[in-house]
Amino acid sequence: MKRTAVIMAGGKGERFWPKSRVTCPKQFLSLTSDGETMIQKTVKRLEPLVSQEDIYIVTNAAYLDLLHEQLPGLPKENIIAEPAPRNTAPCVGLAASIIEKKYGDAIMFVLPSDHLIHAEEMYIDTLRKAARAAEEGCNLVTLGITPTYPETGYGYIKFIKGSGRDGVYGVERFVEKPDLATAKSYLKDRGYLWNSGMFIWKASSILYNIRAYMPVLYNGLQPIAESYGTPAFAEVLDEKFRGLPSESIDFGIMEKAESIYTIPGNFGWDDVGSWLALERINTTDVEGNMFDGDIVSIASRNCTVCGGKRTVAILGLEDMVIVDTPDALLVCDKNSTQDIKKVLAKLREEGREELL
Amino acid sequence: MKRTAVIMAGGKGERFWPKSRVTCPKQFLSLTSDGETMIQKTVKRLEPLVSQEDIYIVTNAAYLDLLHEQLPGLPKENIIAEPAPRNTAPCVGLAASIIEKKYGDAIMFVLPSDHLIHAEEMYIDTLRKAARAAEEGCNLVTLGITPTYPETGYGYIKFIKGSGRDGVYGVERFVEKPDLATAKSYLKDRGYLWNSGMFIWKASSILYNIRAYMPVLYNGLQPIAESYGTPAFAEVLDEKFRGLPSESIDFGIMEKAESIYTIPGNFGWDDVGSWLALERINTTDVEGNMFDGDIVSIASRNCTVCGGKRTVAILGLEDMVIVDTPDALLVCDKNSTQDIKKVLAKLREEGREELL
Repeated sequence: MKRTAVIMAGGKGERFWPKSRVTCPKQFLSLTSDGETMIQKTVKRLEPLVSQEDIYIVTNAAYLDLLHEQLPGLPKENIIAEPAPRNTAPCVGLAASIIEKKYGDAIMFVLPSDHLIHAEEMYIDTLRKAARAAEEGCNLVTLGITPTYPETGYGYIKFIKGSGRDGVYGVERFVEKPDLATAKSYLKDRGYLWNSGMFIWKASSILYNIRAYMPVLYNGLQPIAESYGTPAFAEVLDEKFRGLPSESIDFGIMEKAESIYTIPGNFGWDDVGSWLALERINTTDVEGNMFDGDIVSIASRNCTVCGGKRTVAILGLEDMVIVDTPDALLVCDKNSTQDIKKVLAKLREEGREELL
Repeated sequence: MKRTAVIMAGGKGERFWPKSRVTCPKQFLSLTSDGETMIQKTVKRLEPLVSQEDIYIVTNAAYLDLLHEQLPGLPKENIIAEPAPRNTAPCVGLAASIIEKKYGDAIMFVLPSDHLIHAEEMYIDTLRKAARAAEEGCNLVTLGITPTYPETGYGYIKFIKGSGRDGVYGVERFVEKPDLATAKSYLKDRGYLWNSGMFIWKASSILYNIRAYMPVLYNGLQPIAESYGTPAFAEVLDEKFRGLPSESIDFGIMEKAESIYTIPGNFGWDDVGSWLALERINTTDVEGNMFDGDIVSIASRNCTVCGGKRTVAILGLEDMVIVDTPDALLVCDKNSTQDIKKVLAKLREEGREELL
């Protein structure tokens, strides 16, 4: 069966402020030393599996220019601009409808645009295995990540112990982000995986489930899909998409549907969730520092410094994050990186849109 | 007797990097919210006592433009540019020679260019008292500061307990910067004052002492003083000054001379010795932060942030100093401000003169 990829690239990525902005969120930033942006990496690593003609990107209309610039090899008609953000269920549903219209049916690799994968070969193998499972009748397949610590920022997948066949496990249920005690119990139980947000299914399968569990969305998608490939598409999309219910694919489908499968991945997944990720995904020096740019360090340890055009001198620092951009500078204790949104809230309150 | 002031403005002020540079040291910076530079304040606070025609500034030739710009009311011929730095004894000796040549004799208020005084009226009163003492025969008079903690960065003055007459005390001896244990014993003894580096004497008195204790310097100064006011002055100064012995007035004279007096000042003296001084000399907010510029603060306490043109967001910080300039940024733990010289040493080592 034809294999396609759908990359979800509508996220705002506020946690990487001040490098990420409303006009240039995380997926369009280079956070690794090779200079490639997150979305460029996402497309590139699919090369052995899906050709660029079969890769679709669903994004916010504001990011069209960035996408064309960063992914010049992707057919422009494969970039679908949502007129308004409606969370992941309408995003996935729209892509599935278009793919069904275009190919009859096809495997869809539904993937975030801003994660990192260390072992790309194993990743591709895992996606191939998932595609085969979906072709052979598994309704909905997800990639799970074996937890290594009690993370409270991810959703979890409870799989059915003992159900594994060739590495594909039945899913008992999807669970939302737990509190720390619950996360600890999941870790101890060994029956839970992190929900990576990567899904593999046939377009027909996900549409079947959308019709069953989100009929309003299903009906709303029909006129848009019908107009795909005609001159009226942009106008119909603009008119109808705003009316779709805003819902996540996890809550709308995965927490309700039956016959879900998961494949535990061991391909070195990192969701690059905050500035703290940079010391994981880049090389640190002997003092545990991750430096990018012209940094002069005296007696400083475990600091992440992303310099800009200026020299940054750090003295006697420990566990700090410093990010320098032409119009805004962030200096943050590592324990506070989750509070960057408070800075953004304050700037928004003061009407300082130019910094958001 | 005529009263003159000699302001020593040749210092490098490295401790205020990156705001201070070789090309613009501390005395030419504004470190208070009123926008006045340190040397502007120094000259201005003398207004009730000495007219600008009688104020002399001894500085490094590299700072002539800055001085003319910041002190347009001062006669240009009152600015004496040292061709090379030779510490404070030649600086004071040169000024004394010139003043003696010009006025016959006169009181000299010898003052640093980069200190702050909170109670200026009391300061002027103290200088008046010192001038009277010098006129009435006190050989050399210094202003001492009653210590409030065992500072190891200052020299101390041991005065003769019980010798006070109208607030003027005899000095037993000058002592160099002590270690912490010694500084603590000085504090306990109550017979020691901080050496503020402010001296009051007649030009004839200091020249008498220079002749007695630093004859080589005295002889070297003669041809320069003789040429003052003639077209040959610049050339003679340039030729002869380099040959003068490099020595501090404290070591060369004050630690050796007899009949020295001190007046303990209670005019709120601050030598503004490091970035830590900014929270003392400026207003802090309820969380103990001193902010200058466009600062967004979340959950941060006791931080000193000198912003530049950009927005600085700080998150979860405590006891930090952040100084933003167009080409260099400093982020420093408050306990490490004395180590800024290590940053400068590193930059010098790397040949990055443009940042020094």
